[in-house]
Amino acid sequence: MTTTSRTGTTPDQHVLERFAAVVGSAHVVTEDRIGPDYHHDEALAGAPVAPRYLARPATAEETAELLVVAAAARVPVTARGSGTGLSGACRPVEDGLVISFERMATVLEVDVDNQVAVVQPGVTLAELDAAVAPYGLMYTVFPGELSASVGGTVGTNAGGMRAVRYGVTRHNVLGLQAALPSGELVRTGGKLTKVSTGYDLTQLIMGSEGTLALATEITVRLYPRPAHSATLMAAFADLTAVMRAVPAVLRTGVAPTILEYLDTRTLEALTRAQDLELGIGTGIRAAAQAYLVIGLDDRERASLDTGIDLLGELLDALGALDIYVLEGYSARLLIEAREKAFWSAKASGADEVLDVVVPRAAMPEFFDGATALAHAVDAQLIGCGHAGDGNVHLAVYCREETTRDALLHRIFALATGLGGAISGEHGLGRIKTAHFTALADPVALALMRGIKQVFDPAGILNPGVILGGKAVP
Amino acid sequence: MTTTSRTGTTPDQHVLERFAAVVGSAHVVTEDRIGPDYHHDEALAGAPVAPRYLARPATAEETAELLVVAAAARVPVTARGSGTGLSGACRPVEDGLVISFERMATVLEVDVDNQVAVVQPGVTLAELDAAVAPYGLMYTVFPGELSASVGGTVGTNAGGMRAVRYGVTRHNVLGLQAALPSGELVRTGGKLTKVSTGYDLTQLIMGSEGTLALATEITVRLYPRPAHSATLMAAFADLTAVMRAVPAVLRTGVAPTILEYLDTRTLEALTRAQDLELGIGTGIRAAAQAYLVIGLDDRERASLDTGIDLLGELLDALGALDIYVLEGYSARLLIEAREKAFWSAKASGADEVLDVVVPRAAMPEFFDGATALAHAVDAQLIGCGHAGDGNVHLAVYCREETTRDALLHRIFALATGLGGAISGEHGLGRIKTAHFTALADPVALALMRGIKQVFDPAGILNPGVILGGKAVP
Repeated sequence: MTTTSRTGTTPDQHVLERFAAVVGSAHVVTEDRIGPDYHHDEALAGAPVAPRYLARPATAEETAELLVVAAAARVPVTARGSGTGLSGACRPVEDGLVISFERMATVLEVDVDNQVAVVQPGVTLAELDAAVAPYGLMYTVFPGELSASVGGTVGTNAGGMRAVRYGVTRHNVLGLQAALPSGELVRTGGKLTKVSTGYDLTQLIMGSEGTLALATEITVRLYPRPAHSATLMAAFADLTAVMRAVPAVLRTGVAPTILEYLDTRTLEALTRAQDLELGIGTGIRAAAQAYLVIGLDDRERASLDTGIDLLGELLDALGALDIYVLEGYSARLLIEAREKAFWSAKASGADEVLDVVVPRAAMPEFFDGATALAHAVDAQLIGCGHAGDGNVHLAVYCREETTRDALLHRIFALATGLGGAISGEHGLGRIKTAHFTALADPVALALMRGIKQVFDPAGILNPGVILGGKAVP
Repeated sequence: MTTTSRTGTTPDQHVLERFAAVVGSAHVVTEDRIGPDYHHDEALAGAPVAPRYLARPATAEETAELLVVAAAARVPVTARGSGTGLSGACRPVEDGLVISFERMATVLEVDVDNQVAVVQPGVTLAELDAAVAPYGLMYTVFPGELSASVGGTVGTNAGGMRAVRYGVTRHNVLGLQAALPSGELVRTGGKLTKVSTGYDLTQLIMGSEGTLALATEITVRLYPRPAHSATLMAAFADLTAVMRAVPAVLRTGVAPTILEYLDTRTLEALTRAQDLELGIGTGIRAAAQAYLVIGLDDRERASLDTGIDLLGELLDALGALDIYVLEGYSARLLIEAREKAFWSAKASGADEVLDVVVPRAAMPEFFDGATALAHAVDAQLIGCGHAGDGNVHLAVYCREETTRDALLHRIFALATGLGGAISGEHGLGRIKTAHFTALADPVALALMRGIKQVFDPAGILNPGVILGGKAVP
């Protein structure tokens, strides 16, 4: 492999020409001609960074060839879908190449009999949904942002509200084609829900945030769209009472599609931002500190109704202050408002949004601990989250960066100590990697570094993300 | 690392003493004092092999220390649970060490609120079920053999009939502690259904057949036990008609817990072996070449009944010759008989049992192709399988080894060409590895070999399995 230094005698013009030879000069842009949208994702912390190169491949082969050129020239590569990530995983590095998948955005196949779709990485979740809906099918991963690309969700292993029933992205991606820095394309998995034929490279690439290989084709699992749905909302005196209700709900066997909690400040912010009237009386509003939202789907109305009745009685017995059955329009508005919680948090001036995951029974202990840590530095935490998954979204209000970073570290250490992890669905990106490398099991970290070396010996793929170290190889 | 050769000047006695220093001399056995049960698993092909050493560790730490001794002395290590595997993955190698987990067989925890259990690898599926049933919970992986150990099912990524609803082992293992040849223990995952915090080492170790790390503690996901169940069986004129019914059943949204097909010879063998009377008239028996078996579970009887009605009408419209609703006892007997299909095949003189997986819509094409390949060499194929998963169990009757091996290779190539894989749930073991290395994507294989090197640089863990090469490092 050529080991031309980026700062050596080879001019950038030479690298640029080689990129242009791969994708065509119309699809390579440099430096200040790269629009500011490409300088960042939606992470709240950290400053945008202008990359040196932007290339838009049209095929898997072009993607792989771009990696060969980048590896030879030691140009760090950041893959980009829609740029909706929340951890800075697709924030570029200076001197780097951004590979944008906007020209690889075709739904290649909707295979009804196998209940799978095959898509290019730049396809958005909204486009995928539109492609499969006419067949009565759905792709079940619904993170808040439907403009997210499927490739991006592979990178972060995105979750969302329906994960409590259908799992996160890794549970719904059956196969990949991916480009390696060697210039090779690898195929993993397929239209298969089970395989015991060698190591599961699909699952290894899933959630690797562009550090191992770049997905160029993705086979996702589809499910029948349920015919009937309803939403229950229960007000509780405090968050601990909500959290105690979660295992009881899951033990009934009524598998909810959505099982969310919101603290009262988050619900107020959401309803205000979306101009949503849920019919909660002022007495309840004053007494309730937290809410549980349960979404149910069923193929039959009767079965849905008995599920609602059963859970309603249960929540009542568990001390709910009031219970609301939201039908159709208002239910959809509430869920949509919840999906926009990140934007509400951002609009309200949050300095960071976390997505810590802990064993769900440990949520009360985690909340108490995190709240105490925040109060100790005069910071505020408000939030909502995927209660069924133990996945806590905390909006952190703490302006001063050093204080905030120290607080985040203590919150991550608390979660890790409870058997949890730093991220349940956003990934580590450039924002949380340093916390991860400090808190992770060193044995696991060493294995991950070894794996990285196998896939990406030159270290060009999103250097600095997940495993730390320099952002430029 | 010491690089003492096994055949060099260091006497075996020295190695033996070092193993004994780890686990105590009562728990190390050598050569002809190792009982014949330890010489094989349940794979039909291949001859038993006596290992040189057998050690029974009591703890994770002892397991790791055994690996350090083995790595230093270059002794190949084969992990063993209950020895119920079907691909020879725990068949030992000469000169090798078998690590048997029979002393690490404790259910450490049943955590009802988090719906998980934490177990040692030697716990059997039957023991795990007995431990969680009193809490109204179940571990949903039911391969045919409930005497299988949880550790063994982690190794092979075992499946079984309920995978169509609940997934295979990899979808139900949330975390591991595992011993590495370095002597280190690594912890991966946890009581968490979603994590986006670095590479997923749990999924990488899952299904690695003892070649990367040895699981010493396993956290599994549990589900509520459904209250009601029923079984439908439909007779069809031929296998193609059965296979065409499968996508239609899955499209209804009535998520079956079991979705199996049996050809008529398999059903006859099962009912004869288990003395089972299903009430199939002689006319149907003469006309039907294949059967579809659908198991439904529900928390409510009414919803179960509407599911039965809906599927009954659908199967009728799809040309079923007759449809049987099996209640309680006879349903249980049929499912139990199906679980024992391997033993029926073995008793009937099958020479090999395959578990090829293909996209489920490709099953008719696969059957036609495989049947033609078998007929060309005067071999017979009969079978049953997990129709919802495209997972085909074929009993192969072909006594002559060279002919059989060539037939198997052609069948595996056919499956691979249809987008399938050699094994859906049994793993590759010593029986199918050579076919895999010949048919696999070379890029994927090279990545797997690199990963193996990261975990097991001395190559002592089940050498020869999955990646080929010599059985002795």
